[in-house]
Amino acid sequence: MDIQNAAKNIKVLFLDSDGVIFPNTVLMGAPFMAKSRSYYDGQGISLLRAIGIRIAIITNEKDQAADAIRTTVEKWNSLPSSKPQQSDGWEPIVLYEGCGGEQKSAAAEEFLASRGLSFSDAGFMGDDMVDVPLLRTVALPAAPASAERAIRDLCTFVAERNGGEGAIRDFTNMILAARNIDPFLLPAQ
Amino acid sequence: MDIQNAAKNIKVLFLDSDGVIFPNTVLMGAPFMAKSRSYYDGQGISLLRAIGIRIAIITNEKDQAADAIRTTVEKWNSLPSSKPQQSDGWEPIVLYEGCGGEQKSAAAEEFLASRGLSFSDAGFMGDDMVDVPLLRTVALPAAPASAERAIRDLCTFVAERNGGEGAIRDFTNMILAARNIDPFLLPAQ
Amino acid sequence: MDIQNAAKNIKVLFLDSDGVIFPNTVLMGAPFMAKSRSYYDGQGISLLRAIGIRIAIITNEKDQAADAIRTTVEKWNSLPSSKPQQSDGWEPIVLYEGCGGEQKSAAAEEFLASRGLSFSDAGFMGDDMVDVPLLRTVALPAAPASAERAIRDLCTFVAERNGGEGAIRDFTNMILAARNIDPFLLPAQ
Amino acid sequence: MDIQNAAKNIKVLFLDSDGVIFPNTVLMGAPFMAKSRSYYDGQGISLLRAIGIRIAIITNEKDQAADAIRTTVEKWNSLPSSKPQQSDGWEPIVLYEGCGGEQKSAAAEEFLASRGLSFSDAGFMGDDMVDVPLLRTVALPAAPASAERAIRDLCTFVAERNGGEGAIRDFTNMILAARNIDPFLLPAQ
Repeated sequence: MDIQNAAKNIKVLFLDSDGVIFPNTVLMGAPFMAKSRSYYDGQGISLLRAIGIRIAIITNEKDQAADAIRTTVEKWNSLPSSKPQQSDGWEPIVLYEGCGGEQKSAAAEEFLASRGLSFSDAGFMGDDMVDVPLLRTVALPAAPASAERAIRDLCTFVAERNGGEGAIRDFTNMILAARNIDPFLLPAQ
Repeated sequence: MDIQNAAKNIKVLFLDSDGVIFPNTVLMGAPFMAKSRSYYDGQGISLLRAIGIRIAIITNEKDQAADAIRTTVEKWNSLPSSKPQQSDGWEPIVLYEGCGGEQKSAAAEEFLASRGLSFSDAGFMGDDMVDVPLLRTVALPAAPASAERAIRDLCTFVAERNGGEGAIRDFTNMILAARNIDPFLLPAQ
Repeated sequence: MDIQNAAKNIKVLFLDSDGVIFPNTVLMGAPFMAKSRSYYDGQGISLLRAIGIRIAIITNEKDQAADAIRTTVEKWNSLPSSKPQQSDGWEPIVLYEGCGGEQKSAAAEEFLASRGLSFSDAGFMGDDMVDVPLLRTVALPAAPASAERAIRDLCTFVAERNGGEGAIRDFTNMILAARNIDPFLLPAQ
Repeated sequence: MDIQNAAKNIKVLFLDSDGVIFPNTVLMGAPFMAKSRSYYDGQGISLLRAIGIRIAIITNEKDQAADAIRTTVEKWNSLPSSKPQQSDGWEPIVLYEGCGGEQKSAAAEEFLASRGLSFSDAGFMGDDMVDVPLLRTVALPAAPASAERAIRDLCTFVAERNGGEGAIRDFTNMILAARNIDPFLLPAQ
């Protein structure tokens, strides 16, 4: 499927956490594990949800290493537009922890099947080896500029910005452009 | 209004917080929300105040997410030159929290009206969708280099430096140059 | 020895900590000393271990300044593939603290001798003056892009990425390419 | 005085703290004020001290904002070569806090006079307006790459690296080259 068609058609975006939502770095030596993220990506995810694209995050991290992504997902799921009970509310973002390699694909398949969807309805942004099986399966594989070269070579879309610094927003901007949607007509938050 | 005239005439500068005073990133997973800012911008804001330009910050953030900007404004309002009682003292910087989209414009309008000023006396530096209504209203819309492209395309002035890394100082330098003011003749602090 | 031969033959990689595993910066003023590291490097080290290259870290830091590297090594030595009792398990990564200059070479020599190996079987990535004696002794001296110029000038391999931001992964990618090993056939973790 | 002569002759280097030893950023919102610094600069300062150049830091910061520089100076003054009682020991680095503008020049003058030296024996690396009077007085004014343009325009030497990221090491490398000193013959630490 070419990128224009995929961009017009996907109904789901899967995201890796480290290297995509966060830069692939972690602060060591502190009494906590801290990672930085970009509000440009947060706005990007809201725009995708506003046009009906579902979001699921599938990460290999677990335990304390997943604290940052858990807090982030909680924040995104508490936005005013995240109202699962209402017909026009955004579906909550689902977080799968502790999933590497084939487990990423299994989690994605479960997510899709339970919603009557298939891999041809999905995009995925990943950045390293653990993401390869799922990147090879989805209709629209994507990577941040900072992803490993071998991963970028697998992807249909490579962002201009690095992971944790706007890569997801670049993906969003591309989707909106392909669908001829003016972001300024969507709600900002 | 062209940029030279606007730069010579504005009496107020409105600033967004995240993406302008801070890079648009936040440290997650720590027991606090931390953001970095640049002392170049702090000096830039002092230079603007020294030539009589009022500063107000209008941010969508609130609660814990506004801790960093609150601490920053307190610091700026405790500088020796911030003496509201004295005729030559700088007017305190006003911080509006929890204002997005049209609320930004409403806060700005209130600030201006209570001082007998109008949008034609104001500049605003913003970086993302939530800033669009106010950027479209002021005489001198501005953005950091790191702002979303669609925002930069709306602005008369785009800084060379990123948000949180000197974008406000770039704006200051442009204002001083337009007014033929030598910064070395202004007080440093 | 030319780089292709060295890349095919080395059995051990020695690593400096600050400037190689971490960017050569440290967070000051906090009640802890924090340093950031990249998961790209963590995956790179796993790939090297998966093809049988032993890893030892020889750092000048000690006491609190070595907290970050100690935590990092513990993490790497707790990966599922780190099973010293099993014949196919990865040998634990050894950490030498408080070793500068000639002490780095002495630690490396001890590590090699106890395994029946010599400096001709070893690579070393270092970034500053304290690393010079060992860099001059190993078969494959290497440096991050961010290393001091005088150090880079001594090295056979200079990474494209900075220390703490993928320099070790660049080294890994070079080793795999020289040996015609497809990383996607190795286990990701 | 041209740069070659100044580089050969200076006996003292004055340093600003924020923007020179640290990048000009500070972490806000945390229960502490954190700043990052580079070990490349630490090694650079040791090399300058090893060839007999005295170091004094003159900063406008005080109270909590000076915590990071105080901790840094303590570290540098506890290095094995810092032995004030011994004839070959390095003179301790002096830290002047809370000095802006003309106070920087006064502190520098006091430091020099008490050692029988004059401004023609001194270099100074600064980065913003508060540093201007002293930069205009010393024999060798210097700035990091990240300094304000107006400051860089005043300086004889402008580093390739940013403040807090190796600017002081660039200065050191220039001094050693001008004096034909091979850094590898100096002690590393």
